[in-house]
Amino acid sequence: MNAAVAQLGRKAAGAADAATGQPAADVGQALYGFASQLYPICRSITGNGVRQTLELIGQRIELARHEVASGTRVFDWEVPLEWNIEDACVLGPDGARVVDFRAHNLHIVSYSEPLQRSLTLDELRPHLHSLPAHPDWIPYRTSYYRRHWGFCLRDRALQAMRPGRYQVQIDSSLAPGSLSYGECFIAGKSREEVLFFTHVCHPSLANDNTSGMAIASFLAQWIGTQPRRYSYRFVFAPGTIGSLCWLSRNQQRLKHVRHGLVLGLLGDPGTLTYKRSRRGDCDIDQLLSYLVTAADPPGSVIDFEPYGYDERQLCSPGFNLPVGRLTRSVNDGYAQYHSSADDLALISPGQLQRSLELCQQAVEILESNRRMVNLAPKGEPRLGKRGLYGAMGGRSPADRERAMLWILNQSDGSASLLDIAQRSGIGYAAIRSAADELTNAGLLAAQRTAAGKRRQRPAGPARTRPVRARKAKSGSGGKR
Amino acid sequence: MNAAVAQLGRKAAGAADAATGQPAADVGQALYGFASQLYPICRSITGNGVRQTLELIGQRIELARHEVASGTRVFDWEVPLEWNIEDACVLGPDGARVVDFRAHNLHIVSYSEPLQRSLTLDELRPHLHSLPAHPDWIPYRTSYYRRHWGFCLRDRALQAMRPGRYQVQIDSSLAPGSLSYGECFIAGKSREEVLFFTHVCHPSLANDNTSGMAIASFLAQWIGTQPRRYSYRFVFAPGTIGSLCWLSRNQQRLKHVRHGLVLGLLGDPGTLTYKRSRRGDCDIDQLLSYLVTAADPPGSVIDFEPYGYDERQLCSPGFNLPVGRLTRSVNDGYAQYHSSADDLALISPGQLQRSLELCQQAVEILESNRRMVNLAPKGEPRLGKRGLYGAMGGRSPADRERAMLWILNQSDGSASLLDIAQRSGIGYAAIRSAADELTNAGLLAAQRTAAGKRRQRPAGPARTRPVRARKAKSGSGGKR
Amino acid sequence: MNAAVAQLGRKAAGAADAATGQPAADVGQALYGFASQLYPICRSITGNGVRQTLELIGQRIELARHEVASGTRVFDWEVPLEWNIEDACVLGPDGARVVDFRAHNLHIVSYSEPLQRSLTLDELRPHLHSLPAHPDWIPYRTSYYRRHWGFCLRDRALQAMRPGRYQVQIDSSLAPGSLSYGECFIAGKSREEVLFFTHVCHPSLANDNTSGMAIASFLAQWIGTQPRRYSYRFVFAPGTIGSLCWLSRNQQRLKHVRHGLVLGLLGDPGTLTYKRSRRGDCDIDQLLSYLVTAADPPGSVIDFEPYGYDERQLCSPGFNLPVGRLTRSVNDGYAQYHSSADDLALISPGQLQRSLELCQQAVEILESNRRMVNLAPKGEPRLGKRGLYGAMGGRSPADRERAMLWILNQSDGSASLLDIAQRSGIGYAAIRSAADELTNAGLLAAQRTAAGKRRQRPAGPARTRPVRARKAKSGSGGKR
Repeated sequence: MNAAVAQLGRKAAGAADAATGQPAADVGQALYGFASQLYPICRSITGNGVRQTLELIGQRIELARHEVASGTRVFDWEVPLEWNIEDACVLGPDGARVVDFRAHNLHIVSYSEPLQRSLTLDELRPHLHSLPAHPDWIPYRTSYYRRHWGFCLRDRALQAMRPGRYQVQIDSSLAPGSLSYGECFIAGKSREEVLFFTHVCHPSLANDNTSGMAIASFLAQWIGTQPRRYSYRFVFAPGTIGSLCWLSRNQQRLKHVRHGLVLGLLGDPGTLTYKRSRRGDCDIDQLLSYLVTAADPPGSVIDFEPYGYDERQLCSPGFNLPVGRLTRSVNDGYAQYHSSADDLALISPGQLQRSLELCQQAVEILESNRRMVNLAPKGEPRLGKRGLYGAMGGRSPADRERAMLWILNQSDGSASLLDIAQRSGIGYAAIRSAADELTNAGLLAAQRTAAGKRRQRPAGPARTRPVRARKAKSGSGGKR
Repeated sequence: MNAAVAQLGRKAAGAADAATGQPAADVGQALYGFASQLYPICRSITGNGVRQTLELIGQRIELARHEVASGTRVFDWEVPLEWNIEDACVLGPDGARVVDFRAHNLHIVSYSEPLQRSLTLDELRPHLHSLPAHPDWIPYRTSYYRRHWGFCLRDRALQAMRPGRYQVQIDSSLAPGSLSYGECFIAGKSREEVLFFTHVCHPSLANDNTSGMAIASFLAQWIGTQPRRYSYRFVFAPGTIGSLCWLSRNQQRLKHVRHGLVLGLLGDPGTLTYKRSRRGDCDIDQLLSYLVTAADPPGSVIDFEPYGYDERQLCSPGFNLPVGRLTRSVNDGYAQYHSSADDLALISPGQLQRSLELCQQAVEILESNRRMVNLAPKGEPRLGKRGLYGAMGGRSPADRERAMLWILNQSDGSASLLDIAQRSGIGYAAIRSAADELTNAGLLAAQRTAAGKRRQRPAGPARTRPVRARKAKSGSGGKR
Repeated sequence: MNAAVAQLGRKAAGAADAATGQPAADVGQALYGFASQLYPICRSITGNGVRQTLELIGQRIELARHEVASGTRVFDWEVPLEWNIEDACVLGPDGARVVDFRAHNLHIVSYSEPLQRSLTLDELRPHLHSLPAHPDWIPYRTSYYRRHWGFCLRDRALQAMRPGRYQVQIDSSLAPGSLSYGECFIAGKSREEVLFFTHVCHPSLANDNTSGMAIASFLAQWIGTQPRRYSYRFVFAPGTIGSLCWLSRNQQRLKHVRHGLVLGLLGDPGTLTYKRSRRGDCDIDQLLSYLVTAADPPGSVIDFEPYGYDERQLCSPGFNLPVGRLTRSVNDGYAQYHSSADDLALISPGQLQRSLELCQQAVEILESNRRMVNLAPKGEPRLGKRGLYGAMGGRSPADRERAMLWILNQSDGSASLLDIAQRSGIGYAAIRSAADELTNAGLLAAQRTAAGKRRQRPAGPARTRPVRARKAKSGSGGKR
């Protein structure tokens, strides 16, 4: 299996390359290209925009599409009527299209009911939304659960509207149908799952969230090409009601979710931000904090709070899943948030690629990180006779030797390789590679599940049982 | 019941108003006036000065007076003879009163034995106490447990004394009698008690402790007018031997003391100081630290140490009560401490009022703070359909909505409302008010006692049982 | 028994005086003198140099010498052949001694095999080791476990060597023999042991480690003259293989090791450095951190890492002993490390003496530190009637009184005297002396072993049972 964190980025890019058939340097371009494909679609929490989106994603990865009928009760909620829209506009007194859905998806308040009406400007005004502070941006507004209609427009355009009669035409439908979400399951050796979650309900907002959809798709594609112990599940669902649907249909499965990450807002120029799970001390919290703060440029780690994306539901007290969230800027944390300025100019191939690479690093560490047991715990084993230690004494040990000393010293079954990397200050890649050498030398074995002191249980008990330890024991160590 | 911490001060002043019949702005004046009434009395650890003090306090609140006979054994101590004093003076060689008890209570060393004697200045000198660093201040000295006599005087006066014969007259009495302390009990719905303790043994020291006596009296008066679950007990007792007497007579009752606060030194210009209980992590420690550091200007929090006021006894290892201490300056922490300069000019109506208000805020939070349980813990409940959440989506939630999300997310029975206020950074008043709204909406209920994870147990089990939760359960949530 | 930390240094010096027959001021000189005696010996991990060293140490303290035969299996290792050396040199093309073992022990790579050979400079070169950055220093190199030979020399000398034929003569022996180590056991009242460990394998390196050997020897000598509850064990052994031999032969005894310290590098000009045990929170960690940071000038405390001296073995996960390490500079932490510049000019009598004094202080605190129980825990006992508190009230307590209040308040059996010293900020000596006064007054007794909340168990249960507490109980306290 592959080696050092330092190398993961490059390797991951290479792997994506293999998977996409593009040169590594083009992974960012490919991500950007896919985001650009997703951008024009008019998504909402239900409707054909979501289905179209899932279809595009399904061209890249094996995606099971689920439909949940309108009216289905989902915990405290119910799935709303399905909303679709063909056209919408406001015609001015002179008959010109003052606000035109065909010009931008954001012009219509999502879930606006069908309408054909003539109004004065005063009557129309409460249905018009703009951003006075950003007169050239169209805001993004929704009214999923209260029957309503409205238009969003540039404040500059709003200010130019003169008194008179306006014609409002909304060619939408609100009718029993279903909510759609997609699921990509990649089986590993273990039933223990890693969950990736991304929302697919936003229309024509590039960072929020074509970036998340693109990265989740590429990540799933790449994982499918990798050896793995964990199983992986990617859920592409509308925000809130979509994650609630998934949770409601998968309650029996949640116990298998060992780690999880909500992905979104991963293409903007901001540095990476990891938001801790509600528990705050999960393995995923340790891992992502480690990677994000070590990233170049370093990102930041923030505490859990109950506002955000679908971690709101996944980390509600009734589920409390070990799920964190990875973004660059945070929701409501950048000026263009939820406006037409969150467009394809805001995201870039480079940022998308670096986001993907960090996710790939996370997966590689999740896969390789374990609690190990030193099989010769009394004193240091004699590394030199195994060619693992320099023969010439009197000098300080080389980095590789230091890594081995750290692993041997800490591996009493309570410390994971990542713990050791953090305590020693030695990079994870070097620790992992030294652990491999020690394992090959018969000095180290993976901790058996039952004896583990933390939550994380290595997936396959049979595989992680320290077979060598037992041999060594019965063989009385004399053969080493 | 009342609402926001921000409002508590004003409301509390209003409440005091109702109780005292004075306009709110005069609460400080009323406190100062009461302190001024208490100031001239010559108190000691026993004697009529204490009784006179308790009588004045008893005119404001229902005060039970207790007398403990001289010679009564109290743990390792015994109640001393009762001391009273009529007059005392030192007459100079010319017959003039060089030191005159009638001019200031502090001139006599407390517990000085009766005396009529002629001495040379050299013989007298060891019995004279002054403060060379503050030549115009009279120090405060006592000799409770060693039979002794002495005078305290301005160093300037001491330096002016010329050789010659001096007449010492001390018209005091040291005789079997009793130690007096007062107790005001305000019953609440629960037997669990909040204990307030203040010392009443210092003569003519304004900050130490007419300020504490005045505030404790007004606080008790105000609590009597408030709805409450806790019972409250105010003890006005001489320092050390008085609190030991109270402890000794109330050992069976101590298990009911859930929170406690020693009050003193609350009128000086210093900022507020909270001294933690010996345990250091009691609910009262969390609460007072929260309030004192949020005060304007911010106060400070200091660790427990075994010197100070009656927390010395209340927090001795054999009792270890959950009792902290609230002062402004600390004992021995201001120049005028234990001298005649700790007079009515040192304390002010404003400081007294603000001290009282903080105590009132503390009581309001103690009363309302609970661990709550989210009755719809799987995912977020749909607040919008209950009118608790804005209908227009796409914008960030309002403060009230954020407060609700925080409460719902954290209320698994382990976090109190104050915990949630601190974690979220949202003011306690907003959290409490949002909790009330959620409770009214059937989404939240108080945690039952037994399941609480911390020490604090809400008082009445019957009242705090989440009745709504059960209804909701049997009603299968469908009605919401 | 002796009193204050402040006094410990002086007293210790005095005690050393008694033990060595030298004036106290000469303890540093005596240490330096002994280090100078040890310096010229050519030590390695086996051989007569070690035996000669143990003989010199044995002239000061009762030292049991142990021999472990070559080939003995020791955990993952085996004791190597014994190495001795008579002479070694490199003769230049002109027959002159270019490198001469007789000039400096470090010229020969330790464990160089016997040799007589003629080589060209090119052939010789790989066997020559120098320090280009320090052209006048001879490096220290070893090849214990790979049969090899080599010379170390000044880089200046290496650069001056001209092409031509060189004669190499190594008059060494590598033959079955044994590894030698010494052990000094000083019985105390308890079987619980304090372990001191120092390495004796380095040739002609003054700080590393004639300093450690000298201090360990003097410390053992001094402890023999002191009353003590613990037993003490000093091990003088070659690094790594020597400590492994000791561990292997003493596995049954390890459970008695309550505290331990590896000593080395104690004469250089650096400030003291305490390296924590692997556990990180042992009593020895608390104690040495306390002493080292309070030293003048203050030293530093570093975390455990698995590289260093014999703590590598003692703190391997299979043993995990409560053993820290005391040095001044750390291994590889000073320029002269492992070179001929680590000579007698690097170490000084003053630094050696101050290192010894700190070890003596550590022993005195280990001996006197206990968890105490307040026998009158309800309220403060009346110290005044026992002459332990000033009679004149109104002033703040004196330091001695504050120490007593702290001890009484904290002594519920969970806090040790050192804990109390640290919490109160009062020096350990004052705390201990106040504890003695309180004990003599019948107010305090040592905590019985079983009820102790931390690892440390006072040695003799019979002695530490709070006999007075029981008397007091049955006597109902009335007699006090």
